Amino acid sequence: MAKLVECIPNFSEGQNQEVIDGLVKTATSIPGVSLLDHSSDPSHNRSVFTLVGDENGIQEVAFQLVKFASEKIDMTKQHGEHPRMGATDVVPFVPVKDVTMEECIEISKKVAERINRELSIPIFLYEESAATPDRKNLAKVRKGQFEGMPEKLKEPEWAPDYGERKIHPTAGITAVGARMPLVAFNVNLDTDNVEIAKKIAKVVRGSSGGFKYCKGIGLLLEDRNIAQVSMNMVNYEGTPLYRTFETIRFEAKRYGVGIIGSEVIGLTPAKALIDCAEYYLQIEDFDEKKQVLENHLLG
Amino acid sequence: MAKLVECIPNFSEGQNQEVIDGLVKTATSIPGVSLLDHSSDPSHNRSVFTLVGDENGIQEVAFQLVKFASEKIDMTKQHGEHPRMGATDVVPFVPVKDVTMEECIEISKKVAERINRELSIPIFLYEESAATPDRKNLAKVRKGQFEGMPEKLKEPEWAPDYGERKIHPTAGITAVGARMPLVAFNVNLDTDNVEIAKKIAKVVRGSSGGFKYCKGIGLLLEDRNIAQVSMNMVNYEGTPLYRTFETIRFEAKRYGVGIIGSEVIGLTPAKALIDCAEYYLQIEDFDEKKQVLENHLLG
Repeated sequence: MAKLVECIPNFSEGQNQEVIDGLVKTATSIPGVSLLDHSSDPSHNRSVFTLVGDENGIQEVAFQLVKFASEKIDMTKQHGEHPRMGATDVVPFVPVKDVTMEECIEISKKVAERINRELSIPIFLYEESAATPDRKNLAKVRKGQFEGMPEKLKEPEWAPDYGERKIHPTAGITAVGARMPLVAFNVNLDTDNVEIAKKIAKVVRGSSGGFKYCKGIGLLLEDRNIAQVSMNMVNYEGTPLYRTFETIRFEAKRYGVGIIGSEVIGLTPAKALIDCAEYYLQIEDFDEKKQVLENHLLG
Repeated sequence: MAKLVECIPNFSEGQNQEVIDGLVKTATSIPGVSLLDHSSDPSHNRSVFTLVGDENGIQEVAFQLVKFASEKIDMTKQHGEHPRMGATDVVPFVPVKDVTMEECIEISKKVAERINRELSIPIFLYEESAATPDRKNLAKVRKGQFEGMPEKLKEPEWAPDYGERKIHPTAGITAVGARMPLVAFNVNLDTDNVEIAKKIAKVVRGSSGGFKYCKGIGLLLEDRNIAQVSMNMVNYEGTPLYRTFETIRFEAKRYGVGIIGSEVIGLTPAKALIDCAEYYLQIEDFDEKKQVLENHLLG
């Protein structure tokens, strides 16, 4: 049984096609690693890569990508809508198959150590790899962004986990960590009133008293003129998709609003959806590991 | 990309542990083939094996199992609750990955031809491999069972697809064919009135005017004293699970009866359940092939 680990590095370049091509070339150069997806957003000036590979391959590809980005992306000249603090902004490792969260934490630390040692880029460990609860949340870690980091690193509680209290002059600083797979799940409402979506987002997201493993905001889909509750489900076992969906349904009712549909953006583990089928079909005693055919086929 | 084919042979022996062990040994002796599951029912006097393998391995293992069964199971002495016509009763091949139904039909014909040539067991091709619509349905093909087959084979329309109009003296006759994956799906009602389950089964099953790809009966679960609509979903894309579930829900309402839960028995393709999640979560434009992570991992 090969251990399979996913890695989804985010790079602060979404415009320069030459640099993006170089990242793709690097991403596809390591044996035992597959590039499943990559997308670049020019206005965010950011590219997200989705890779999966064995234990060793995934570490190598992550390091080589960070190295390439540090040589090609100059943060002193980088601007975009998306918050960022490094040429490689964040490198999450996610357990996919026959690998534990603990092993992914180990992998994240090995890669972090090597990036710092060979490239002199300081590292914050975040999410499951975080040394303190304060460093779990990427938004908190990144607060201040590239420009504010030199000051932030001087604060007593913000010494990097690897490296000195000093950013890399052009590549900044990078967050590395292990986390659960994340499912981007949006629910569309039959209203153009974005305030309703914002109120509902507040109900479902953990930070304001809702479901612990749900992050969410309300926004307006301008092209369709409908309001949307846009969520990141950061642990679909702790907070299943159907639970936020049904909560949004009954909260929207109070405004006389219904659900038009939903969206799953990008990749999702099959289990995040199978768990929902189990709920709605009221399946008794379902053993996903044993009963789903594909689980027997993944070498 | 390896082509993956499932094979689920049914043997008319569910009591003699020595024979069952021999079948298991044979099932695990072919490179490129995995035995995913096997179960034996003494009162049915029947064993069902679930194998998956590449194009060549699956043909070899199917043949070797039929050979072993023909040497060890004597149908002149076999009795059990389950209808049967041969030592190996039926050998279905199911497309799993990167293989078409047409290719599975070809595989079924090659195996059928070899069984007949080397073992002198006559073969009916059934389901997708059937030469005529009359032979699609296994129950029709098997009607008369082992004891009635010598007479049945004399009827003009019941010449075997391979072999003479004469059963093998001890191994009888075997059905071989290609079919879609089958999902065994049962819905439990909060009533002990089996007549209600029978009426609802009649509504949902294709043969009495319901959904084309659903077979179903009503029965009483004696240990729980509840009625159940027990179904075989023979093409979960043509008739999705949620559609029969919701139909059973609204049909049961007319009797003041609700659904307690459901059961998926044995293996199911992930997609049969993911399709249900898509329906209930109202997911727009979901591309299962691209968006489900595991689909990128299956070599």
